[in-house]
Amino acid sequence: MTAPYTPGPRSRIKRNPKRGSYDRATVHAILDSAMLAHVAYTIDGQPYCTPTIHWRDGETLYWHGSSASRMLRAQGPGLPVCVTVTHLDGLVLARSAFNHSANFRCAMVFGKAHLVDDAAEKERALYAVTDRLFPGRNAELRPMTTQEIKATSVVRMEIEEASAKVRGVNVGDDEEDGTWPVWAGVIPVTTVIGPPEPSPVLPDTIPLPAHLSAFAAGRALDTVLQDSFTRWQEES
Amino acid sequence: MTAPYTPGPRSRIKRNPKRGSYDRATVHAILDSAMLAHVAYTIDGQPYCTPTIHWRDGETLYWHGSSASRMLRAQGPGLPVCVTVTHLDGLVLARSAFNHSANFRCAMVFGKAHLVDDAAEKERALYAVTDRLFPGRNAELRPMTTQEIKATSVVRMEIEEASAKVRGVNVGDDEEDGTWPVWAGVIPVTTVIGPPEPSPVLPDTIPLPAHLSAFAAGRALDTVLQDSFTRWQEES
Repeated sequence: MTAPYTPGPRSRIKRNPKRGSYDRATVHAILDSAMLAHVAYTIDGQPYCTPTIHWRDGETLYWHGSSASRMLRAQGPGLPVCVTVTHLDGLVLARSAFNHSANFRCAMVFGKAHLVDDAAEKERALYAVTDRLFPGRNAELRPMTTQEIKATSVVRMEIEEASAKVRGVNVGDDEEDGTWPVWAGVIPVTTVIGPPEPSPVLPDTIPLPAHLSAFAAGRALDTVLQDSFTRWQEES
Repeated sequence: MTAPYTPGPRSRIKRNPKRGSYDRATVHAILDSAMLAHVAYTIDGQPYCTPTIHWRDGETLYWHGSSASRMLRAQGPGLPVCVTVTHLDGLVLARSAFNHSANFRCAMVFGKAHLVDDAAEKERALYAVTDRLFPGRNAELRPMTTQEIKATSVVRMEIEEASAKVRGVNVGDDEEDGTWPVWAGVIPVTTVIGPPEPSPVLPDTIPLPAHLSAFAAGRALDTVLQDSFTRWQEES
């Protein structure tokens, strides 16, 4: 499926539409190069914003656990949610406080959340998130027990509407500010991987496995996660 | 004010309460060492999750712009929101897919959002965010015009309830999994500052100013933002 998403009342971009897009590949790339999402949902009129680990499989978005589990189980048609993934890419410094900004890539995805109750589907989803993050790792793990699968909450949502918003350029100062004598530009920020910290009870004889070689210290997390996702898709 | 927040029905931590806290300094540190927040609000029953740049001043949280501006103006008593700030600190790899986790610091803050309409308060808030991020920068900037102040939306919220959740330890494998022959541990991730990218129209004669010396390439963004916040508080 490569056609763009169709904007609806929830997803139509009203502010700064020049930065917005309904392009499917753009939305997918923002989702797949991240593992942290924020989920907004409403219970009894009160909005909540919960961070979670998410993963995508086609047009289905999954995420881990939910403090809304009880609410989800009670909702036959699903709980309306908005799932947002944002990469912060830079601080944009201008000659006027007004023109300061941030560089970022953001995807907002709308749909109705359901608890995954079917044991087989839940088992598949839980193995999928491990292989999506660390392709090949499941084959080396102690298999999950029925009790572990039961004890985990997985939420599923079909993507109904989605939009992306991206700012990735240098500063947009007013032309007449060009000679104002203060530094202007972008201070980039990147989320990078650090040196691995083995479990204190890990025997010295167990090295970092090949399936983690992509997670080398200094690499950008978004690049590694996008690569892992692509590898997982190719192998499954 | 140093007493902990009083948990209420919105903020009481139900899942993994051992990771939760209502400690005011813990919540503040998570907020102040970040510039990216996600705001959840509900319009006509539909939840939205919007990323924004936030800043704190005492027990007041401010953020930039809002696609809910029209909604906010219509709401006398304020729009109920949940503002969440999450730092991702690491990927936690275990011997069972079930025990995989993430290290993170998260603050969830509840209150009622109001548009800042008063011109003087808005001007103060807009200068405050620049000095909060880059203490001393405003003094070197071209002053904002009345039109610029008018064109920016600022939202204000008194913090009514708040909680923090933190996971910052190594892997919690089941004891009997200790000898399972696969690598386990934490792969840390940090958001770091990169080399500054000057505006393409910046004269070569303008160096990076002293007020940006904290933003040195390689430094962790959360440390720099916490330091900037502390400096701003001391100087104002």
